[in-house]
Amino acid sequence: MDLDFGTNKVNINVMNIFDSDYMVGAHSDVLKSIIDTNNLRTSGYGQDEYTQAARDVILEKCGLSSDNANIYFFIGGTLTNKVLLDIILESYQAVISADSAHIFIQESGAIEALGHKVIALKGKNGKLSAEVIDEYMKFYLSSQHRIHLVEPGCVYITQPNELGALYTLLELKAISDVCKKYNLLLYIDGARLAYALGSPKNNVLLKDIAEFADCFYIGGAKCGALMGEAGVIKSSIRKSHFMTNIKRHGALFSKGRVVAVQFLALFKDDLYTKIGKIAYSTSSMLYDNMKKMGYNFYIDCQSNQNFVIFTPRQIEKFKTKGYDFSIWDNIDGNQITRLITDWTFTKDDIDKFLKVAKECV
Amino acid sequence: MDLDFGTNKVNINVMNIFDSDYMVGAHSDVLKSIIDTNNLRTSGYGQDEYTQAARDVILEKCGLSSDNANIYFFIGGTLTNKVLLDIILESYQAVISADSAHIFIQESGAIEALGHKVIALKGKNGKLSAEVIDEYMKFYLSSQHRIHLVEPGCVYITQPNELGALYTLLELKAISDVCKKYNLLLYIDGARLAYALGSPKNNVLLKDIAEFADCFYIGGAKCGALMGEAGVIKSSIRKSHFMTNIKRHGALFSKGRVVAVQFLALFKDDLYTKIGKIAYSTSSMLYDNMKKMGYNFYIDCQSNQNFVIFTPRQIEKFKTKGYDFSIWDNIDGNQITRLITDWTFTKDDIDKFLKVAKECV
Amino acid sequence: MDLDFGTNKVNINVMNIFDSDYMVGAHSDVLKSIIDTNNLRTSGYGQDEYTQAARDVILEKCGLSSDNANIYFFIGGTLTNKVLLDIILESYQAVISADSAHIFIQESGAIEALGHKVIALKGKNGKLSAEVIDEYMKFYLSSQHRIHLVEPGCVYITQPNELGALYTLLELKAISDVCKKYNLLLYIDGARLAYALGSPKNNVLLKDIAEFADCFYIGGAKCGALMGEAGVIKSSIRKSHFMTNIKRHGALFSKGRVVAVQFLALFKDDLYTKIGKIAYSTSSMLYDNMKKMGYNFYIDCQSNQNFVIFTPRQIEKFKTKGYDFSIWDNIDGNQITRLITDWTFTKDDIDKFLKVAKECV
Amino acid sequence: MDLDFGTNKVNINVMNIFDSDYMVGAHSDVLKSIIDTNNLRTSGYGQDEYTQAARDVILEKCGLSSDNANIYFFIGGTLTNKVLLDIILESYQAVISADSAHIFIQESGAIEALGHKVIALKGKNGKLSAEVIDEYMKFYLSSQHRIHLVEPGCVYITQPNELGALYTLLELKAISDVCKKYNLLLYIDGARLAYALGSPKNNVLLKDIAEFADCFYIGGAKCGALMGEAGVIKSSIRKSHFMTNIKRHGALFSKGRVVAVQFLALFKDDLYTKIGKIAYSTSSMLYDNMKKMGYNFYIDCQSNQNFVIFTPRQIEKFKTKGYDFSIWDNIDGNQITRLITDWTFTKDDIDKFLKVAKECV
Repeated sequence: MDLDFGTNKVNINVMNIFDSDYMVGAHSDVLKSIIDTNNLRTSGYGQDEYTQAARDVILEKCGLSSDNANIYFFIGGTLTNKVLLDIILESYQAVISADSAHIFIQESGAIEALGHKVIALKGKNGKLSAEVIDEYMKFYLSSQHRIHLVEPGCVYITQPNELGALYTLLELKAISDVCKKYNLLLYIDGARLAYALGSPKNNVLLKDIAEFADCFYIGGAKCGALMGEAGVIKSSIRKSHFMTNIKRHGALFSKGRVVAVQFLALFKDDLYTKIGKIAYSTSSMLYDNMKKMGYNFYIDCQSNQNFVIFTPRQIEKFKTKGYDFSIWDNIDGNQITRLITDWTFTKDDIDKFLKVAKECV
Repeated sequence: MDLDFGTNKVNINVMNIFDSDYMVGAHSDVLKSIIDTNNLRTSGYGQDEYTQAARDVILEKCGLSSDNANIYFFIGGTLTNKVLLDIILESYQAVISADSAHIFIQESGAIEALGHKVIALKGKNGKLSAEVIDEYMKFYLSSQHRIHLVEPGCVYITQPNELGALYTLLELKAISDVCKKYNLLLYIDGARLAYALGSPKNNVLLKDIAEFADCFYIGGAKCGALMGEAGVIKSSIRKSHFMTNIKRHGALFSKGRVVAVQFLALFKDDLYTKIGKIAYSTSSMLYDNMKKMGYNFYIDCQSNQNFVIFTPRQIEKFKTKGYDFSIWDNIDGNQITRLITDWTFTKDDIDKFLKVAKECV
Repeated sequence: MDLDFGTNKVNINVMNIFDSDYMVGAHSDVLKSIIDTNNLRTSGYGQDEYTQAARDVILEKCGLSSDNANIYFFIGGTLTNKVLLDIILESYQAVISADSAHIFIQESGAIEALGHKVIALKGKNGKLSAEVIDEYMKFYLSSQHRIHLVEPGCVYITQPNELGALYTLLELKAISDVCKKYNLLLYIDGARLAYALGSPKNNVLLKDIAEFADCFYIGGAKCGALMGEAGVIKSSIRKSHFMTNIKRHGALFSKGRVVAVQFLALFKDDLYTKIGKIAYSTSSMLYDNMKKMGYNFYIDCQSNQNFVIFTPRQIEKFKTKGYDFSIWDNIDGNQITRLITDWTFTKDDIDKFLKVAKECV
Repeated sequence: MDLDFGTNKVNINVMNIFDSDYMVGAHSDVLKSIIDTNNLRTSGYGQDEYTQAARDVILEKCGLSSDNANIYFFIGGTLTNKVLLDIILESYQAVISADSAHIFIQESGAIEALGHKVIALKGKNGKLSAEVIDEYMKFYLSSQHRIHLVEPGCVYITQPNELGALYTLLELKAISDVCKKYNLLLYIDGARLAYALGSPKNNVLLKDIAEFADCFYIGGAKCGALMGEAGVIKSSIRKSHFMTNIKRHGALFSKGRVVAVQFLALFKDDLYTKIGKIAYSTSSMLYDNMKKMGYNFYIDCQSNQNFVIFTPRQIEKFKTKGYDFSIWDNIDGNQITRLITDWTFTKDDIDKFLKVAKECV
């Protein structure tokens, strides 16, 4: 299939079931929450009791309260990042991110579209370090040209990040400290937060995220929801008029409760974390077994993402088996391919793939 | 219930079942389409076969083809307006609207947020006329100060509009002609298009919309969908890179097919128009009977919206019956209240309300 | 002469010496200040002793100090308005102006270009009143749709305004009071401030402007300077990083002292006010005599601007004498023409024109 | 002197006469042009005969005509870059620059402020190469994620660049070719163009700039003018309404002729190039002699800029002589200082400094 999107020709590859974690709909419990409430008649724009209940649950799980935090629901990670970063930054401020951050590379200039420069600093395994931030701020503050430099206003990190890597609690605390030192706000993009929370490699709890970040979001769309994300703005953000500002950004969804009920489902009996656990079990099964078979990986498996380095020969072999992987990146003539799992994969699915992988090694 | 949204206190009124057409979830057929496809694994970002099928159906219903139009799916009317208007306008151009248009009044400056001035011209029953546009363009083009005036790039109308009023085919054609005369693009906001298409008062078909507009959207969220709108960009818009531009605006939904399947349901067996018909039948029943009872209306009923002028005494009476109407506007000491129906209302629902209304006249 | 500016054809009329107050260069004292300092070598970007001295003089004349106000120099009124309004407004806020304000009509959407809606309220003689602002804010705050409305952040007025009319001290105080009542900042555009300060009809001193406004600018370009305006940001504006923000807007002029020395000249021996006085004397001479001759005026003369209502026959007669007036506006088939004076006009210039006017009445 | 600019404390250093090329006013011939025309009364906003004459001269010197190019005058390099880049780019497009380009580093996010990402590619001596651009575009076009990447719209280079280095004609041609290959526009920032044109190391003529660039500007403020730059938009830029767009950006100067007469002076008898020659003669004298004394330079002298690498001990010695250099950058514990000359320096000035330099080596 080759579709014409404007002047772009985009090759569509549906032959990789591990292509991403937005390929299926919702977790069955989440879907049920939508079905069960479908015929109810409630107020719009998040001013209904379901939205209020979802806010309350999230605040509680975060160890926050309505005294020190506001919750808003959004649809779409890029939009959530745009709106929340624009809310917390002064109009003239920039956001600091890792050079592999998707707000720097893969959101089509979405943050700059609102006037905010993204200052990309060297990351390691896609992670920013406190040291790198500290070094940049020292350079910035000591520069004779400072009035000609853009003013950094916040630091952006993702947990887990674009490579599936996890910040440790120590790393997160160090970043939080350096932010406080330089009066920078800390923003955490939790598009795939479930896959951090459910990983045995992780030691950062939701309450830690909520403690160290000034603003963050809990991703739904990639973590069991049909769509939707929950943004948390702590009272350390000294702004107001969030609702009208969100509306102005086109991000105030009229049927707010449709997102809220999904979060009620996701946070009932810790389903959100369970989804992460299920995905890790299949993701690590993929990693461990392929590693044993001799496949090389770009980075160790820490959550639901794996980045295999396929040789051209392996790619060819897989093609004969009906697998056509999309290219994440290229390295030394080889192809990095992302293999990602979600809550829907079973041991059988993985076994079936591993059988093929064994033949293509 | 009194919720704190930032510094704003918002009074929530759930005692009016006619408050809006975004109070329930999806039409049962639409919900079924989501449920039926929930467990399928498809490509993201609208590059799947369901999205392609939905595009094909919409193009066909519009009398368009992939040669002369592109279809993109969005979530949220304000976001759709923002993105599409920004796509069709040059960065320095303004959009002309009626002075009652929601992009001028009720979208919190969402269009200006992208740098485009909204030039509001005097409307009648919320409708712009070709004459008023012509008059403005004559003033603009003859002005000695023209280089100091903002350049109008397109005309924005809604069908049905914010007062439920309908443009006739003649009016639409006249607006289209004046647009062509002055090289202005025509944009039609169809947030509630189903309620025009299903109204017996309407003589503008979907194909007419598609013929006269350069860009428009078919609203889903208020017309039977759980969420989502279908934007149509005709080839008269000489731009490209729509996908990356939509992504940049934070409007590219990863699970694109979730919106697409809903439009497949809405356009199967003309469900979209049927939804409008059902809503008109209850809306006109409300109007005709209340009018007979002696209630005054701000405007005649043409689609699913009614604007009753309640006296303070009537408001009080309704309150004793448990109805607390939100205020649309005030006029001569009286309160204008919007009573709106959707596909879920039955004759019984209306009868029940009319009984109360009779007692409060 | 008919020049092509992009696709626009602009008719140039140089046959009216009263066309505007930006037609000549600088007042001789101001020019001398540039010449005298031309060969000096100073630091750039306003970090030199001349700029500091000019800041000190302006602060003193305003009754302010560096403890409660910052002064920045700009070039160009529109740019100054853009930068200062963007500094004082939150990104999501709008500015309230009269419906005849040039930021609403004649700056090509310059304010909206930065994302701020201009809310235009009905003016009288181009002036906003406290009552009109109060009424709008009452509507805004009582609206059930408030979160969908744009948040007003400041009030913009011009002294003298686009029609040459002056706010009285009482009017200014009332506007200041209503701003405080609703937590709105007050911004005063002083592009032609000299012509207010030098008018016998005026009772608002520079210190009053400085007391009531939170932010304002003292215009140079139309008031004797070659170019340049002095922006004053009072400490009631709770923002910081002005320099880097100004740079970001492209408004930080490298040779800052070139503007500063002109303001030193303008504020030496009250030259700024004198320029206004001279212009008023010729402007009122024009007005009084033409009025006696039977010419109609759109508004009484209060500063250096007059708006004569010429009949088509008068226009024709003037043409035979070599005068081709640009059109300000049209009214009842007649043409409103702006006749404006500056510091360069003498009694003789006016006498000469009046002689012609007498023949064309 | 330590001034408070908002919350920033800025150290001012006036003890280095070589600090920049914006430290003095205008070249005497240029100043004379302002003085001579000061009392004339002309139309505003560039619609006068001086502006027209300056346009004609510049077009001729560039080998262009009004059929294939438009000239607009601006004040301020950052503002000129903002406006011209915004004019030539689609709203969603990014600009490619070297990683040392001042639009990337030293303009406080001025380009991003208009929504355009700056894609910084690795430069050599501050110069972009055709190869690096080619490599990026190959990556971009072959990326599976292309719709998520920002669309590059133009390439930005400076001649001479931020390190005083010059693009050769071959390099420029190669960049132009790669731009054409990928449908990228080429923009040349000529803030210091005089110093390229007047350098014996340069083989790129003004006509070459005009041939290869789609849009460029000829800098005045740093090259002999009191202020002002001349922007050239070639007809390869398929846009219109430049005047109203410039006004919208706050960059339309009312007294346009004040900038125009300066360019008339600068282009009379090739003064512009002569200014560059004078500056090169003193700049190269500094370089050659200091090099002989044993000073290290960061880059060879090609125009009016030198970047000496001072050891801490040298810095200390210079301080005892009353020289306090501002820091351009630090390298291996040493300080890079920019020494820059302009048209006002004489052999004596340099001799005097070299005498001191000899004692501090």
